[in-house]
Amino acid sequence: MHELRKDILLGRWVAVLSETKAPSEYDLSSNKRKTESNCVFCSGRENETPSEIASIRKPGTLPNTPGWWVRAFPSSNPVFQVEGDLGRRGLGIYDKMNSVGANEILIESPEHNTRPEDMGLEQMVRVINLYRDRLVDLEKDSRLRYVLIYKNSGKDAGETSSHPVSYIMATPVIPKKVKDELDSAKEYYNYKERCIFCDIVSEELRVGERIILETKHFIAFCPYAAKFPFESWIIPKKHNCAFQEITREEIEDMGLILMSMLKKLRQIFIEPPFNYFLHTSPNMVPRKNHWHTLGEDFHWHLEIIPRLRRMSGFEWGSGFYILETSPENAAKYLREA
Amino acid sequence: MHELRKDILLGRWVAVLSETKAPSEYDLSSNKRKTESNCVFCSGRENETPSEIASIRKPGTLPNTPGWWVRAFPSSNPVFQVEGDLGRRGLGIYDKMNSVGANEILIESPEHNTRPEDMGLEQMVRVINLYRDRLVDLEKDSRLRYVLIYKNSGKDAGETSSHPVSYIMATPVIPKKVKDELDSAKEYYNYKERCIFCDIVSEELRVGERIILETKHFIAFCPYAAKFPFESWIIPKKHNCAFQEITREEIEDMGLILMSMLKKLRQIFIEPPFNYFLHTSPNMVPRKNHWHTLGEDFHWHLEIIPRLRRMSGFEWGSGFYILETSPENAAKYLREA
Repeated sequence: MHELRKDILLGRWVAVLSETKAPSEYDLSSNKRKTESNCVFCSGRENETPSEIASIRKPGTLPNTPGWWVRAFPSSNPVFQVEGDLGRRGLGIYDKMNSVGANEILIESPEHNTRPEDMGLEQMVRVINLYRDRLVDLEKDSRLRYVLIYKNSGKDAGETSSHPVSYIMATPVIPKKVKDELDSAKEYYNYKERCIFCDIVSEELRVGERIILETKHFIAFCPYAAKFPFESWIIPKKHNCAFQEITREEIEDMGLILMSMLKKLRQIFIEPPFNYFLHTSPNMVPRKNHWHTLGEDFHWHLEIIPRLRRMSGFEWGSGFYILETSPENAAKYLREA
Repeated sequence: MHELRKDILLGRWVAVLSETKAPSEYDLSSNKRKTESNCVFCSGRENETPSEIASIRKPGTLPNTPGWWVRAFPSSNPVFQVEGDLGRRGLGIYDKMNSVGANEILIESPEHNTRPEDMGLEQMVRVINLYRDRLVDLEKDSRLRYVLIYKNSGKDAGETSSHPVSYIMATPVIPKKVKDELDSAKEYYNYKERCIFCDIVSEELRVGERIILETKHFIAFCPYAAKFPFESWIIPKKHNCAFQEITREEIEDMGLILMSMLKKLRQIFIEPPFNYFLHTSPNMVPRKNHWHTLGEDFHWHLEIIPRLRRMSGFEWGSGFYILETSPENAAKYLREA
């Protein structure tokens, strides 16, 4: 019989079907990769993008010239705009504010036809370093409450360029999905006096069947009640709410595990569309004369969601998800890849 | 400047872009309709589907033979299965239960190549009547907590057959999205002593610019902080938590407004993929010696979501949505269609 599972973090239920679907049975035909011949994200066309905010580049090379390994600049068509005040106000019974924030593009490599998992560890470490640097920088802006780093790969996952890029969105409010995780983690902490994520890590290590990879500092596993088949999380074993505090050694370890996960996904699917995003604690907010941190009971992690199926009216109307491959089977496929 | 808006019901924020996108600028090329020549949902093939549970048919015709106008039968591959007990249990730190429930297919017409908006009012009234009948019947099962009725139209919306069908899913738990609406409506009621949906209806009628249609019993409007561009809701003007209590006159009125909305959508988009779903209060649950109704402060409604764009890592990671067409502009396009 099929099984319903409750997500311990968010309280949502998912149905895990009893007949498991193999990777080859997912239809990903619409995701053939297009490669543009004309790409302003490539090395040599720096003057055609907005001016860079940050980069990691060869010693002696100048900003906005070739010689960079990774590079971030503002979107030329931002959803969240850097200038202006928050302007919170009412409108009848409703609320609105200005779309203040930041919207940056982080180019993961000067080469067009490479993928994150093929770039090599040194390059992946640069990408993660730049993630951290941008987060550290953006959280200084007291108007901003959250910084979300994410990636879209494949058309069905919202990819708009085949050049390897990540995105950074800094928002003036804590996004709802993050807020829900924070609230639940806090409620669990109040009840158990333990971090819910630390409990998940130790339960997953105890049971083992959903673990894909374990390194010195991280585990990668398929969550017990995932929303997406083959969804996986990368989470540090040591409790820490803030990704920004990641050490040099941990960055190297994270680069390794992230590359391995993306390689494994590509090995079992043909061109799998996927997203990943980083959930870390919100920015600190000034409260009277001290800085107040939200999310001390939070634990940062990276969620990788393969986009193998279209959501129907059922998922959108209910928030109930259907897993055609169980997390245990998905972990097995990924472990063995 | 772009604007951020807070959804009064769920507290989520959406960004409304200042340059509005016209309907013709959405790329819906992958949604060309396929028509199967071989369809077991068509009249004359009743013996190839599971046995019907309910139908509205010509007087004197027998179940599972031609002569029906609308017809419901169980899915042959159900996610939620009718037999068995709930079997709630723990597993380590997690929770699970059996996938008990119901999973029915409701055929909206004996004809394959018709669409809901072209079927005529009499037929649409039969569809809505059968929605109500199935809800009334399914809520008698005390194991079930919720009945979701929904429709998938177009490949990007999860359509699997081009025959006009709706789906009925009865679940043993209240789905998270419904629970969130119920909880917020309750909180608002506790604070204001008024129904949040009634307040939305009166605010929308007062302002007018997001209203698409108004009939004697219903309004159709684009929500102030919709998740999807061109999203619309059909909501009864009179407070009622339960769709099941809809009157004959109201069903006729609802048929009219739903057909008009689907016609308008098709007029401004070419083959728009969309879903709609009905949000009504949960089933009554027996508590000691009386029946307890959840959702007395709820107000049933139907949400229509055109699936015009793919969700990226931003939406999945944040729960923050981006509207490239403002609800006011969307309502104007729909009003004028």
